[in-house]
Amino acid sequence: MLYNDSIVALATPSGAGAIAVIRISGQDAIAIGNSVFKSIKNKDLSKQKTHTLHLGHIVDDSKTLDEVLVSLFKGPNSYTGENTIEISCHGSTYIQQQIIQLLLRKGCRMANAGEFTLRAFLNGKLDLSQAEAVADLISSDNEASHQIAMQQMRGGFSNEIAKLREELLNFASLIELELDFAEEDVEFADRTQFHELLNRIEFVLKRLIDSFAVGNVIKNGIPVAIVGEPNVGKSTLLNALLNEERAIVSEIAGTTRDTIEDELVIGGIGFRFIDTAGIRETQDVVESIGIKKTFEKIEQAQVVIYLFDGFKFQVSSSSFISEIEQIKNKYPLKPLLIVVNKKDILSVEEVSNITNKLENLNAKLLLISAKEKIGVEDLKNELLSFVNTGALRNNETIVTNTRHYDSLLKALDEISKVKYGLETGLSSDLMALDIREALYHFGMITGQVTNDELLGNIFANFCIGK
Amino acid sequence: MLYNDSIVALATPSGAGAIAVIRISGQDAIAIGNSVFKSIKNKDLSKQKTHTLHLGHIVDDSKTLDEVLVSLFKGPNSYTGENTIEISCHGSTYIQQQIIQLLLRKGCRMANAGEFTLRAFLNGKLDLSQAEAVADLISSDNEASHQIAMQQMRGGFSNEIAKLREELLNFASLIELELDFAEEDVEFADRTQFHELLNRIEFVLKRLIDSFAVGNVIKNGIPVAIVGEPNVGKSTLLNALLNEERAIVSEIAGTTRDTIEDELVIGGIGFRFIDTAGIRETQDVVESIGIKKTFEKIEQAQVVIYLFDGFKFQVSSSSFISEIEQIKNKYPLKPLLIVVNKKDILSVEEVSNITNKLENLNAKLLLISAKEKIGVEDLKNELLSFVNTGALRNNETIVTNTRHYDSLLKALDEISKVKYGLETGLSSDLMALDIREALYHFGMITGQVTNDELLGNIFANFCIGK
Repeated sequence: MLYNDSIVALATPSGAGAIAVIRISGQDAIAIGNSVFKSIKNKDLSKQKTHTLHLGHIVDDSKTLDEVLVSLFKGPNSYTGENTIEISCHGSTYIQQQIIQLLLRKGCRMANAGEFTLRAFLNGKLDLSQAEAVADLISSDNEASHQIAMQQMRGGFSNEIAKLREELLNFASLIELELDFAEEDVEFADRTQFHELLNRIEFVLKRLIDSFAVGNVIKNGIPVAIVGEPNVGKSTLLNALLNEERAIVSEIAGTTRDTIEDELVIGGIGFRFIDTAGIRETQDVVESIGIKKTFEKIEQAQVVIYLFDGFKFQVSSSSFISEIEQIKNKYPLKPLLIVVNKKDILSVEEVSNITNKLENLNAKLLLISAKEKIGVEDLKNELLSFVNTGALRNNETIVTNTRHYDSLLKALDEISKVKYGLETGLSSDLMALDIREALYHFGMITGQVTNDELLGNIFANFCIGK
Repeated sequence: MLYNDSIVALATPSGAGAIAVIRISGQDAIAIGNSVFKSIKNKDLSKQKTHTLHLGHIVDDSKTLDEVLVSLFKGPNSYTGENTIEISCHGSTYIQQQIIQLLLRKGCRMANAGEFTLRAFLNGKLDLSQAEAVADLISSDNEASHQIAMQQMRGGFSNEIAKLREELLNFASLIELELDFAEEDVEFADRTQFHELLNRIEFVLKRLIDSFAVGNVIKNGIPVAIVGEPNVGKSTLLNALLNEERAIVSEIAGTTRDTIEDELVIGGIGFRFIDTAGIRETQDVVESIGIKKTFEKIEQAQVVIYLFDGFKFQVSSSSFISEIEQIKNKYPLKPLLIVVNKKDILSVEEVSNITNKLENLNAKLLLISAKEKIGVEDLKNELLSFVNTGALRNNETIVTNTRHYDSLLKALDEISKVKYGLETGLSSDLMALDIREALYHFGMITGQVTNDELLGNIFANFCIGK
């Protein structure tokens, strides 16, 4: 791909604001800027230093479109690595459109989604995994996902991969050299060192692959299903957790017929709470559809909260216990929290009745009052304990991107083959093929190996202007 | 009002975008910026030149919040006249919030609406009418309103007022000097020159006051009521004008029961088309409420389009003519356009029947087909002819602001008094009072005279971050 043209796009969100920023990048960006910008001091932009700001007007022939500030970046000292100017104009949609239309007439073309970052990648300003982190960073909405994206953008992940790839490449060269001297039966590559390197690579790959489980939930939020009888206070609990009235709270049993999702950040981790219709026995068709949906939501959830009314438990404990057992039998490995609501109206005897009857279920038990907001903080802490935040706390590299995960799995597979080949005395020419395959998958992560389709897929997920 | 503190706000629209800009202004803006910004080249912001850009990271203790570009402006060379930095960060809401919260902890406070521009005014960077033009510019959504705001922001209007005010101030001083020498009966102020100045001021004030009629409609859009029988094609015409399907087009008579407004920019001027329920005789309660509303809308409109079905006219011309006469009698001065729809299915005889029967009504007649989009351009041109765009075309100063209009009227009133006093030989001391009053109203426009309440009212209309 060769890029000689200059691209333009609005870099700030559309809509009304104090200012808007229009970004132009390309060989002619400064010349095009000069053709529409009249500095108040009659400066020629092309003669100004990089990383300077200039006040003036955008003019279309004799018509003044706006008073603006122009930021000047001379390639390669810019985000894209090309000449770049950013026009900071007044935040009227009309003005933004007028300026962009003028720039299009002056020879720019509209940038595609992510095209500024694509150019930055093609010009070697960042590698592919860093470029992908830019999009993750923009969409991050909590501390954990932000921290991971930030670390990836700063190269933590790809540096590690690139270093291993280089070492592997060294051995590959030596082994391929051996092939040229095949008849002399020499070994340029030290097999012991090579085996050691393969072990190291395997270790790193496995750690990164394992981190994806954490990375993926952190990126997308941890789904928590709230299950229980209708009218037990699921909506009230959700509101207590969210600290606002989002779900409809009603006195009529079975109000929450459809599933509602709400996001909440606890300790920097995003949780997605899924309110369900419960799983009580019913004749009602709508209700029974709700129950089917409840099981689907439990299936998808990482954690299940079974919520019941501690007061009602006193008269019908068996139905609650049977429901809990139903969930435990169906999903034995899924973390289950039994949460007893309406603690505020329970006597000491009633509480001990609950704890006695439930102790055999071998599940974590919490007594709360959603209405009075008693025990809600304990519940939050309990939820947080299900997340393995160790890696996050230790600032370890965490993989969040499915594409990276996929390449890491493939690379590990190839490395295992190479190791097996080495251990079983496979011929160098066959081993060299496996090493090449492994190198290919390493390169796919950082972008040393790439193709138009891959780039197209990656950058299509960006917003326009980035 | 004294401002020593540093204010911070998001200057770009909220929501997702490639980048966001956070603006800080105040004495300590650069020091605060330095405390959270780590330049990649370890630069100290306070030692950098004004109007320069710096790449680095925003850090909260050891935690990196984002990679950003910082724009540095040293007072008085900034928008506000104070030290200012603008942080261009990634467009994630989470990042924006984190950075703003960090800055608040570091000693900034959240800016009020328009506070940056208020400071610019208080620091003499722009006068009050220019400051007001900034808000107009941001909200401008068509060429005409944009052009007027731009001209006002560049000082066209206030320069004229300030110059006249200065001349008037000169005479005021001379006349007040005469009061000190009252017993000697001297005349320092040349009465002929003074009379000439008053005439000039009167002329300018009247022109500016007259321009408000144009300015006001340009700023707010020109309301056009479309009146006619149900099912005559009002919605279809509206759609033809708008080139899209916005109003509900239906075959059932009386579909348009409520009024619908749609905006359209014709020749750079904004028009607000108001679809009405028509004014035919009816027994239907809902319909009759619609008819009452129709008259209200005609009342508010600057132009009325009476639309009827040219085919139906052949059998019931009298009811159409009576309705047109009803409107003309009720609003004799309101521009009325008679628009005959369904031209595409009319014979030559039917067309001449229409023109013959309507020629006595003394109103502009247009034959169109909303469905086939025949004559729609003619209609647009006809509408444009009702707007006196002469002043706009000639780049004359146009007043759009009600506050300015009000001050101009009061100033004119005082100037007339002064002139009358001069002509009738009023004593200098009484005349001096009237001159002071006129000067006061001049000063109110440009902001030489001001008070907290006035400033509060003006800047409350701004967005935060401007």
